[in-house]
Amino acid sequence: MEKFTVTILGCGSAKPTLIHNPSSQLITIGGKAFLVDCGEGTQHQLMRYRCNTTRLRHIFISHLHGDHIYGLPGLVSTMGLQHHDAEIVVHLPEAGIPLLQPLMEYSAHDLNLRFEPYEHRRAIIYEDKTIEVETLPLVHSLPCCGFIFREKPKPRHIIREAIDRYEVPICRIAGIKLGNDYTLPDGRVIANDELTSAPSPSRAYAYVSDTLPLKAVAHAVKGIDLLYHEATHPSSRASSSKATCHSTAAQAAQIASLAEVKRLLIGHYSSALKGDDINGLLEEARAVFPATIASQEGMTIEI
Amino acid sequence: MEKFTVTILGCGSAKPTLIHNPSSQLITIGGKAFLVDCGEGTQHQLMRYRCNTTRLRHIFISHLHGDHIYGLPGLVSTMGLQHHDAEIVVHLPEAGIPLLQPLMEYSAHDLNLRFEPYEHRRAIIYEDKTIEVETLPLVHSLPCCGFIFREKPKPRHIIREAIDRYEVPICRIAGIKLGNDYTLPDGRVIANDELTSAPSPSRAYAYVSDTLPLKAVAHAVKGIDLLYHEATHPSSRASSSKATCHSTAAQAAQIASLAEVKRLLIGHYSSALKGDDINGLLEEARAVFPATIASQEGMTIEI
Repeated sequence: MEKFTVTILGCGSAKPTLIHNPSSQLITIGGKAFLVDCGEGTQHQLMRYRCNTTRLRHIFISHLHGDHIYGLPGLVSTMGLQHHDAEIVVHLPEAGIPLLQPLMEYSAHDLNLRFEPYEHRRAIIYEDKTIEVETLPLVHSLPCCGFIFREKPKPRHIIREAIDRYEVPICRIAGIKLGNDYTLPDGRVIANDELTSAPSPSRAYAYVSDTLPLKAVAHAVKGIDLLYHEATHPSSRASSSKATCHSTAAQAAQIASLAEVKRLLIGHYSSALKGDDINGLLEEARAVFPATIASQEGMTIEI
Repeated sequence: MEKFTVTILGCGSAKPTLIHNPSSQLITIGGKAFLVDCGEGTQHQLMRYRCNTTRLRHIFISHLHGDHIYGLPGLVSTMGLQHHDAEIVVHLPEAGIPLLQPLMEYSAHDLNLRFEPYEHRRAIIYEDKTIEVETLPLVHSLPCCGFIFREKPKPRHIIREAIDRYEVPICRIAGIKLGNDYTLPDGRVIANDELTSAPSPSRAYAYVSDTLPLKAVAHAVKGIDLLYHEATHPSSRASSSKATCHSTAAQAAQIASLAEVKRLLIGHYSSALKGDDINGLLEEARAVFPATIASQEGMTIEI
């Protein structure tokens, strides 16, 4: 099965600290790479963790707060210096285009850069043969969307022995992988499940930052393999968390629990939290949803 | 005497590395702070080296290459979060305004931000009671200016004993500090140099990055206390240095020698240089101009 990984490049929040970098994650699925958010210093983090970005083509920006976008000019400039010749697409709220396009296009004049605005609603904004990315509207102090990365349904696995037994010609294999039955020259029909076994599961990852806790999110990410949900504050700061349209660790865990996801990843830590406080956040989340992981820079999670 | 210091926040060049940050320096003179260039991550460097930026009001941008400007949006955003209420002035080539203003004003909507374009010629672009900053045209692949920070001539030091002996009234002291003689009630004239001693020297610092080596620079910085001159490459890469409009370490040292400056500070190291190679650059420069210092992040040089 192809690797599907999430690498944490930054899990801090708006106010910069020396402990955390601002938000950014690299998602790799098979050989493809996708960047989600791009806080200041993201290009250095990609270098620090030896991330391969030669196949990075799509960058998804959740919203226009600086801690999610300030790394974009530097990143595309360096990609330009590296002579990337493929088109690089930046998916972002439309309001970001006049802010970012002048500096980014100036910075990366060698790069084939395209800005693709998306709206604040659920929609598939990227798809290829095997993957789709869907926006997930969130509620923050300005328009913000999460992203769900999903593998499309995969072909069924051929049972080699059965294929040989019935002398199935190669030209039929693709259809059989998609679920077709096979009709023998004598008219007998061999049911697909005699020829194939179930396909590998289609995995999915949801990135949910920054937001108030929302039941709609739990509904949208039902049963997902890995949910990243922001957990900016501990419950002890619930009122300031609400006032700034963020979530507490317990709230993130409640969403994970309601959605019955397989694992929860928390991050987007407030600058007021020190190293040990992150353990407190993790305990708080695990009390509600045991399968919780606390983000840290450089961590790669396999899905 | 008030402190006059230069703190190196970044001394790398265009291609990012994990060893150096891109260009930025904090100049403090007395209680005032000035930032020169602002590569990506500058706000983190200011935090890392515990620099006091509460009195930072003026930012000088030498040119519009990304490694000198990408830290601006994050820096002003954080200054906005810190509720700076004084006006912050960004001095930059006019072409930078449409590139940077949209993102910076959006980022720092709480901040009183002003963009002050300067031209590619020698001119005083900032002055207050005690300091002036002059642009110094350089030759790079796009319009670029260095900056000379100069203390204005200082008042002469009062000789307390002479002031007491001639019973000089307080209202005359300011004039005497400026060099006036003093006339006694009986008409006798006391020469100023009987009442005062020479003022403290007026110090000066020149920031010269990025450029081909120029005799005009040596002329402009004649006898200066500290010259920062870019030294992107070793002499072994002189031709590529020339092709990219940069200087070698030996060339920087030749300018320092020609200008008879007191000390030379080199930086803007090519990403191709590793840790030990910087020692090579330093040796190369010192062979020509012994009083050379190699920049490193976090270093503070007192003038």
